[in-house]
Amino acid sequence: MPSVGSVADTHSVKDREMPDTPQFAGPIAPPARLLMGPGPISAYPSVLAAMSAPLVGQYDPFMTAAMGETQELYRSVWATTNEATLLVDGTSRAGIEAAMISLIRPGDRVLVPVFGRFGHLLAEIAERAMAEVHTIEVPWGQVFPASVIEQAILRVKPALLGLVQGDTSTTMLQPLDEIGALCAKHGVLFYSDATASLAGNPFEADAWGLDAATAGLQKCLGGPSGSSPITLSERAVEVIRSRSRVEAGIREEGDAEASDFVRSNYFDLGMILDYWGPRRLNHHTEATSMLYAARECARIVAMEGRDAVIARHRLAGDAMLAGVRGLGFEAFGDVGHKMSNVVAVEIPEGVPGDEARGAMLSDFGIEIGTSFGPLHGRVWRIGTMGYNARKDAVLTTLVALEAVLRRYGVAVAPSGGVEAAADVYAASSAEA
Amino acid sequence: MPSVGSVADTHSVKDREMPDTPQFAGPIAPPARLLMGPGPISAYPSVLAAMSAPLVGQYDPFMTAAMGETQELYRSVWATTNEATLLVDGTSRAGIEAAMISLIRPGDRVLVPVFGRFGHLLAEIAERAMAEVHTIEVPWGQVFPASVIEQAILRVKPALLGLVQGDTSTTMLQPLDEIGALCAKHGVLFYSDATASLAGNPFEADAWGLDAATAGLQKCLGGPSGSSPITLSERAVEVIRSRSRVEAGIREEGDAEASDFVRSNYFDLGMILDYWGPRRLNHHTEATSMLYAARECARIVAMEGRDAVIARHRLAGDAMLAGVRGLGFEAFGDVGHKMSNVVAVEIPEGVPGDEARGAMLSDFGIEIGTSFGPLHGRVWRIGTMGYNARKDAVLTTLVALEAVLRRYGVAVAPSGGVEAAADVYAASSAEA
Repeated sequence: MPSVGSVADTHSVKDREMPDTPQFAGPIAPPARLLMGPGPISAYPSVLAAMSAPLVGQYDPFMTAAMGETQELYRSVWATTNEATLLVDGTSRAGIEAAMISLIRPGDRVLVPVFGRFGHLLAEIAERAMAEVHTIEVPWGQVFPASVIEQAILRVKPALLGLVQGDTSTTMLQPLDEIGALCAKHGVLFYSDATASLAGNPFEADAWGLDAATAGLQKCLGGPSGSSPITLSERAVEVIRSRSRVEAGIREEGDAEASDFVRSNYFDLGMILDYWGPRRLNHHTEATSMLYAARECARIVAMEGRDAVIARHRLAGDAMLAGVRGLGFEAFGDVGHKMSNVVAVEIPEGVPGDEARGAMLSDFGIEIGTSFGPLHGRVWRIGTMGYNARKDAVLTTLVALEAVLRRYGVAVAPSGGVEAAADVYAASSAEA
Repeated sequence: MPSVGSVADTHSVKDREMPDTPQFAGPIAPPARLLMGPGPISAYPSVLAAMSAPLVGQYDPFMTAAMGETQELYRSVWATTNEATLLVDGTSRAGIEAAMISLIRPGDRVLVPVFGRFGHLLAEIAERAMAEVHTIEVPWGQVFPASVIEQAILRVKPALLGLVQGDTSTTMLQPLDEIGALCAKHGVLFYSDATASLAGNPFEADAWGLDAATAGLQKCLGGPSGSSPITLSERAVEVIRSRSRVEAGIREEGDAEASDFVRSNYFDLGMILDYWGPRRLNHHTEATSMLYAARECARIVAMEGRDAVIARHRLAGDAMLAGVRGLGFEAFGDVGHKMSNVVAVEIPEGVPGDEARGAMLSDFGIEIGTSFGPLHGRVWRIGTMGYNARKDAVLTTLVALEAVLRRYGVAVAPSGGVEAAADVYAASSAEA
């Protein structure tokens, strides 16, 4: 037995012996990847760096200040003065569910215009929130004229309209600018899921009359999945407040208790607002590292300038569209209404789609996307988002794609894609 | 107008000009903090590093392999062979809600023994899941004898028993080892919330007969909040599968659709299992960076050894208990049943609790915890968890606390805390 004090503490972290560990349990060491699919995409390096910043306590003055800064930064991203601008701790669909379940009372009529998979998701979430759900649909690859949505509002008389802005399943971007006025006119709450589109396409929460909008970091904001920015109008906050219920265990005398309280604790935006607001009432423990990431994503937008970031996405999207056409691809859907940040291309006859995508990944480290539902096996989806909305990423993807297509016997004009895309960039520089 | 090609692309990420940014929008730069409260705590440096690893695609072979490794690592943490061992993307209460809402059908009777704030939380979440909730209570600072829980089971005949293992609000650790057998005997599903206790105290999911258990990273696992490890027995998976519903938009012919489907999309464990399982059916986009963090937390446990990590927490807890007693503090509650990783101490007469905690933070960068409900203003909570369950963290906290107490006029034996704690470490080294 060694004498006291002369021997290292065998229980200390610093001194512990590391036994041989199996191969699988090495430190995480991802392969190099250029993520050019419909998201998630490669994060900005400064976002990755922000996540390795040390943690602080939940009510540390630094933490509450960082939460406040993050709110202010996202007001700028959403183009809103909404006080209720914050994060939901979960992936983008956590934000969708929080918005819908907090705004929809069981039995409420909800209208969801569906133009792709994520419209189905909104309808599904509304159903699970026990709404009476009404959908209208257009074929995949199209968007809705405002007049069609108004007709449906008149027929259904919904309490809430749930409308995806950009549906990555089809790449379409639903115009929202006239919808808020229609909703206000007919007394309908207006919610939009801007996960795939925010920061890569215009979004004007206040000017367009949004009552609620949610997003994720893993698309044009250039961060990892796992935090969902959300903004709520005063009218939305009133609805949420009318259903307020403070959790037993921290409830105080005088705290309201509504009978139609939200049927989720985690997604009850009333409680989440009390946590982010001046009352700082404990709810979840804010996901500190994801907050750092979300803050950095919005800080990048603020530094580069919101309009400049949107313009960079438009340019990259225009270049990629010209590039894939230069490779002989047909772009899917109503291209005049596609999001700037993703294009769907018809897989050429005779090319095994998944095998060719596999070659892109294994030979070039480049990921492009497959697709869902009616488009599965028919199109690839190629994204240009966030950090990857840049010239070298676009051009590299196009030269690799050219080589892979040729390998599968497609007759491709040598450099036909890359030069068409380079021309778009050159023309843009010339204009500048 | 500059000639084409001769000018830098003004839209590229690399070349963009950074305008002066307001003070608040600097890169995240947290102050140095030693987090010795009830959680969140300072993360292991390797966990912070893991989160800055580059992202990969959702179905990249590396990603699905990392998910599989993470499952395997958490089977070891939970001491289970449960195939259904995975992460819920959200904070620890996301895991709680996912477990409860997926296992409880509306109208089910649920029994929750409450011995602190987090028992109230389980009851609240069960209420929101539309269960008929029955609670039994002991005064804060105590735990339940198994016989009392059995009597309540016989009286209530619940479908599910929800029992917190370690409730940080009181620091108590509820013994679970006899409860699983009682539940099995009476046909009750057994769920435990091990957020505060897992990896710092024994937990034996299989040997103790758990049907479901959930945790968070921000306590003894030594990571950030934002990912919730969960494990489910085969019996629990059967219940969940019986309520299966595949999302519209990706539903295929032959997919089941139960009428009593889970009233949440995000927390429907059936869909989350299909995403983590061989079917890899798209649900949310896994929070990649949080997965990296969760994987690293469990990898640390595997490398150091689960029993060694628990022993390290016990040693740090024993040392801290001896230390605070050496400073003249009274430890709160039934100390024989407290968690190893946190102690509550009665704030001495005349010491302004929040002001003294503020001095710990501003003068020493050390955070200790306040408390909730009946204990608010009466006790501080001091944690020794994860990375901070180590000698230097314990001793540093004690010397700082001594100085602060003296400043507020408390008669403290010079070095009375630190030497008592050091003696515990020395005795442990001597035994080794």
